[in-house]
Amino acid sequence: MAQNVYDDPAFFAEYSKLPRQVHGLDGAPEWPAIRALLPDLAGKDVVDLGCGFGWASRWMRAQGAASVLGLDLSENMIDRARASTTDSAIEYRIADLDTLVLPAGAFDLAYSALTFHYVENFGRLVRMVRAALRPGGNLVFTIEHPIYMAATHPNWIVDSDGRMTWPVNGYFREGERTTTWFVEGVRKYHRTLDTTLNTLLDAGFRLQRVVEFVPMAEQIRQMPQLAEELERPMMLLVSASL
Amino acid sequence: MAQNVYDDPAFFAEYSKLPRQVHGLDGAPEWPAIRALLPDLAGKDVVDLGCGFGWASRWMRAQGAASVLGLDLSENMIDRARASTTDSAIEYRIADLDTLVLPAGAFDLAYSALTFHYVENFGRLVRMVRAALRPGGNLVFTIEHPIYMAATHPNWIVDSDGRMTWPVNGYFREGERTTTWFVEGVRKYHRTLDTTLNTLLDAGFRLQRVVEFVPMAEQIRQMPQLAEELERPMMLLVSASL
Repeated sequence: MAQNVYDDPAFFAEYSKLPRQVHGLDGAPEWPAIRALLPDLAGKDVVDLGCGFGWASRWMRAQGAASVLGLDLSENMIDRARASTTDSAIEYRIADLDTLVLPAGAFDLAYSALTFHYVENFGRLVRMVRAALRPGGNLVFTIEHPIYMAATHPNWIVDSDGRMTWPVNGYFREGERTTTWFVEGVRKYHRTLDTTLNTLLDAGFRLQRVVEFVPMAEQIRQMPQLAEELERPMMLLVSASL
Repeated sequence: MAQNVYDDPAFFAEYSKLPRQVHGLDGAPEWPAIRALLPDLAGKDVVDLGCGFGWASRWMRAQGAASVLGLDLSENMIDRARASTTDSAIEYRIADLDTLVLPAGAFDLAYSALTFHYVENFGRLVRMVRAALRPGGNLVFTIEHPIYMAATHPNWIVDSDGRMTWPVNGYFREGERTTTWFVEGVRKYHRTLDTTLNTLLDAGFRLQRVVEFVPMAEQIRQMPQLAEELERPMMLLVSASL
């Protein structure tokens, strides 16, 4: 079962202050890259896996989605998401992606932002999503990049020229990683890029796009700390279809 | 134009002593993983891009390929390759992959081992290969992993626990990398994983498999220095089809 750190009050208080929680999708620098991967949403039935406050669920509905089911492990998140809409075509529900059961052939798009790296059994989830999608359906998701996740001490170091350098070790030791993010003991699951992509291929998905998030010059101008994301791949965005 | 370091006498003398040159395919620890990506070769017309001494060209012919065209920039390599066979269905020819022109629809398989990272214009090459393949054709290639290529100083460091750690920086600065490998000034071209895979997708290829080479336990037992390849992804193997 996935860890529910989002219902830890200390974590949630800090997490809620993140730009992407306060400002929604426009607070996420990878959002333009995600948008470019999304299919036309008009008339689509969508499931949002790890919907958080529901920003993307509501945006997809506003783009014409027929229905959006937003799922999240966190009661805090789902409570906030529910309070943010009266649209009966959007449903928010508590669910653990490690044990989730979805109805077969019920969706045209499965979307997930920065959630799958909390899931222990990725293969089970991918096969479940595949069965839940209709023919021609799409899966679009983002995760922390495997290179960002791998190391025992995932913190910037400097090389002999003083250049910011990202450490990689234990790359092929897949499984649990425990990090400090607002609180200690935040549990994630590292998988190689190989495992991530081949799990999709094995489940019958076709890869449409594999994107490594890189900030645009204008984004770095507005938020100079994003410049460090030129040094390492921090997020992986994948678009796959049936 | 790609640099022809292989015809530098000092380089070639050392390069020729590598296990994979002395022992052929069995001297390359990634060979079992490559074999798993190759289609049935019976009756196929194959082009081997960067054939070196021609070990793989001859192996593919022995597996039933109808013909194999082995191409390499290096006269040293091609001379040695030609001297190693009298089979008229194998042809070895000098060619620069940055300016190569292949006949359209002439091959069933394009194969390339550890060569594409010397090519400056990957997009041009991929589109050329696509046009040279028949419908249903395959492209199987290996390259140095983008994570292995990126850093200004691509050398092992140790983390605070003494763990072997691979440095990553400049990941999104694509282009030339100059390293020392037997001789100084060996020129390679770094491309992100994003660019590598999306160039294939844009050219009309379907991704069949994206493999990060990891040594097997038995290989590490026989060659203990391979254990460091558990810490970082060193090679990328890709299988794509039309």
